[in-house]
Amino acid sequence: MMSLAERVLAGDSRAIARAISLIENEDPQAAALVRTIFGKTGRAYVIGVTGQPGAGKSTLVDRMTAEIRGRGHSVGVLTVDPSSPFSGGAVLGDRLRMQGHAADEGVFIRSMATRGHLGGLARATGDAALVLDAAGKDIIVIETVGVGQDEVDIIKTADVSILTLVPGTGDDVQALKAGIMEIADIFVVNKADREGADRLVSSIESNLTLQTYGPDQWRPLILKTIATNGTGVTELVDAIWKFRSHSEATQSARRQERSAFRLRELVAKRFMDHLELGVLRPGELEAMVERVAAREIDPYTAADELLALGLTRAEGL
Amino acid sequence: MMSLAERVLAGDSRAIARAISLIENEDPQAAALVRTIFGKTGRAYVIGVTGQPGAGKSTLVDRMTAEIRGRGHSVGVLTVDPSSPFSGGAVLGDRLRMQGHAADEGVFIRSMATRGHLGGLARATGDAALVLDAAGKDIIVIETVGVGQDEVDIIKTADVSILTLVPGTGDDVQALKAGIMEIADIFVVNKADREGADRLVSSIESNLTLQTYGPDQWRPLILKTIATNGTGVTELVDAIWKFRSHSEATQSARRQERSAFRLRELVAKRFMDHLELGVLRPGELEAMVERVAAREIDPYTAADELLALGLTRAEGL
Repeated sequence: MMSLAERVLAGDSRAIARAISLIENEDPQAAALVRTIFGKTGRAYVIGVTGQPGAGKSTLVDRMTAEIRGRGHSVGVLTVDPSSPFSGGAVLGDRLRMQGHAADEGVFIRSMATRGHLGGLARATGDAALVLDAAGKDIIVIETVGVGQDEVDIIKTADVSILTLVPGTGDDVQALKAGIMEIADIFVVNKADREGADRLVSSIESNLTLQTYGPDQWRPLILKTIATNGTGVTELVDAIWKFRSHSEATQSARRQERSAFRLRELVAKRFMDHLELGVLRPGELEAMVERVAAREIDPYTAADELLALGLTRAEGL
Repeated sequence: MMSLAERVLAGDSRAIARAISLIENEDPQAAALVRTIFGKTGRAYVIGVTGQPGAGKSTLVDRMTAEIRGRGHSVGVLTVDPSSPFSGGAVLGDRLRMQGHAADEGVFIRSMATRGHLGGLARATGDAALVLDAAGKDIIVIETVGVGQDEVDIIKTADVSILTLVPGTGDDVQALKAGIMEIADIFVVNKADREGADRLVSSIESNLTLQTYGPDQWRPLILKTIATNGTGVTELVDAIWKFRSHSEATQSARRQERSAFRLRELVAKRFMDHLELGVLRPGELEAMVERVAAREIDPYTAADELLALGLTRAEGL
């Protein structure tokens, strides 16, 4: 009988789904799986798509997926919703969509939602992308909702970042103002048949003008799309390909930076597991929290005491 | 000469501003300051306001501040923008607004934006709230943009959470769907003179109908406001007061949960500082990252090796 890792490496869709579920649930088997498959990863190209709710990202990703499939590549899609920390399930709409690809073996689609402290969702998304990579998907599309720190962290998992904006929502200027611009390699003005599309393009353009780009540096492209009827989607995929060949030299540095970020988060998580599951006695953390609540101790001193416990009681390891 | 902590405790606005800057910059003095003032905190009531960009939160918070001042309480306002991780500065618009309160000594307003891994922004916001609390502000309003995990973490700093929605943006249904509902104690439908306001109220209402509330459990209130002309603001502040007296019994449990969350993040941060600044030699982390990039080692094994280093080299502490 084949192991789960072997089945993932063979590209078995049910094994991929099972592996991602283990990752979502932070099952101990998930880490073991990632350890096993990790050597077979690093081949896939990862596209990140973000933007506010209502920007039409899902439809856009659908169309992009069809276009990329049409060019002969297999595709894995992860839709990530950091704003559903409490629901614990994926967004229904995402599950119902993309039915057009359901019969296509070359497309794997999955929604992710998970609680998770300490960058848990970004870590889970990164691991799920490794699974798709190991399973032989050429292109991985990660779609996130919103433009907060979480989305930024998730988008950092990507080789290319696409920010989707919509004319006339008023959100756009704020999104631009808010510094999210700096993570976008490609801007997409979706619903470009709406009033204000050209104005939005100009406002992105004038923002870009404020930046300085070196001669070899990528200057973000701005594209207009109408995802609902497919307008501009071919050009978008062309732009992604263009970015990919432009950034071949810098891609490994970007992946390295991402890898350092993830490694730091993972080490922090491991220490907390060590502390809470291996070192502290039941109720010890809660007792410290109560002392903080009673103002008997301040949080920084409390943290130092817990850290000292985690370090000194490590001897028995 | 008075120390910074003494000046904060005396309610000196310039000292408060200086203290919050230290916190934003993760200055070592900031932790020392929080240690010193912590015993004088726990008196202020914290109101969290969140919602998508464009929901009119700033204007709403302005009006609420005026109303609360009118009832004789001093107010501290923190506007937090998790989506500006790279800009490193506060959003200009926030600095320019609220000029009406500029001459009022009983109001302190501050925008915050900071990079920060491992819950850095939530931690900084929590510490800034402690400063305002120690400085004698009766009410602290924390306003965040967006509805991602970061905002959820920040809103958890609050004693009462207000979610602001706007009719006819299409965002609302997605926000509701996305599980953010579960953190809201009060829903505000702002710009309630727009078409679709009643429909939005009904859709929130029918979502609430799906939940089960125990006899003593708070059932979220839904209020309509037009922040630009002040409509509904008195009722909103009444609703906050109502929630406050309703939740007196459960408030300490909520604060305790929040405190446990923050303590965990702080311990993790402390361990990483210990590891990166005290244990690892320069370049050691980077070397490990390169081994991961070269697929010589998987990230989980790498994390375990770094953790082991952090624990075993702790003896010299």
